[in-house]
Amino acid sequence: MSKTSLDLGPLPELIGYVLRRAQLVVFQDFFQAFAPFNISPAQFSVLTVIERNPGLTQSQVAAALGIKRTNFVGLLDELERRALAERRQAARDKRSYALYLTAEGAGLMRKLKPVLKAHESRMVARIGEAGRDRLVELLREIVSEQASNGAGIRAAKAPRPPRPGSVAT
Amino acid sequence: MSKTSLDLGPLPELIGYVLRRAQLVVFQDFFQAFAPFNISPAQFSVLTVIERNPGLTQSQVAAALGIKRTNFVGLLDELERRALAERRQAARDKRSYALYLTAEGAGLMRKLKPVLKAHESRMVARIGEAGRDRLVELLREIVSEQASNGAGIRAAKAPRPPRPGSVAT
Repeated sequence: MSKTSLDLGPLPELIGYVLRRAQLVVFQDFFQAFAPFNISPAQFSVLTVIERNPGLTQSQVAAALGIKRTNFVGLLDELERRALAERRQAARDKRSYALYLTAEGAGLMRKLKPVLKAHESRMVARIGEAGRDRLVELLREIVSEQASNGAGIRAAKAPRPPRPGSVAT
Repeated sequence: MSKTSLDLGPLPELIGYVLRRAQLVVFQDFFQAFAPFNISPAQFSVLTVIERNPGLTQSQVAAALGIKRTNFVGLLDELERRALAERRQAARDKRSYALYLTAEGAGLMRKLKPVLKAHESRMVARIGEAGRDRLVELLREIVSEQASNGAGIRAAKAPRPPRPGSVAT
């Protein structure tokens, strides 16, 4: 039986299934492009939020990105180990830490800019600018419905990620 | 600093970022809906392909769904342990196994049909029927570019999933 004759039943029409397939394809391109810097999509998004909002607490960054606290701690440990970001004791609350990029982290982010741009261009080339705009709009509508405040992806309530290990399609 | 004033920089415009956020939201709904049956999206897709194409080999099912062989073996072990699917020695090739649903697996799939339908209806309600059609079309264009045979998601070449553990945004 050849692959093309496989009957996938309802899967190719299911929003979750096609979303997951497309997400894996886009992340695969991202991983390849960022491999020389050993930066994952999750790490990149954390570095971006810290770069844009220095001094945030761990929970603020984790919530903004919809990353579970336990996963976030591991992510940040790794960035700190690699001296790209650092925790500093927050001035107001001695129990919490404020997050900053190191000079090395800021330098890396500058180097990553053209890498990100090239990655995104390859993705946009597949569906065109108008397709991208519509896609982003539709995906935000899916996410914003979830947000308690209705403010969309920028302020989306952190969705609970799937159970660890369920990375397959 | 309130969540809404966070600067996410380029993230909300990045195809990969919005895809991942939306995928997590959709999977979260799936997990909640299927929790009484303890079935994940990956398990559901494997059961669907076996149900529709009884007798396929493990590699055929894994390739059709873009699941890495190592992840697939674990998935199938679990389905076999729960007596939902079974490996039978293939007639032609004694070294490979053909996959079938058990009667229990077939019964479960019947029970899951309305659960799937309700899940999908909730997702479609967020963007409308036309939005869904356009979304699926755009996502398939992203995936099919990847496929060596150009036949789209139905016959997409299995994309390499991201490294295990990189489940965060």
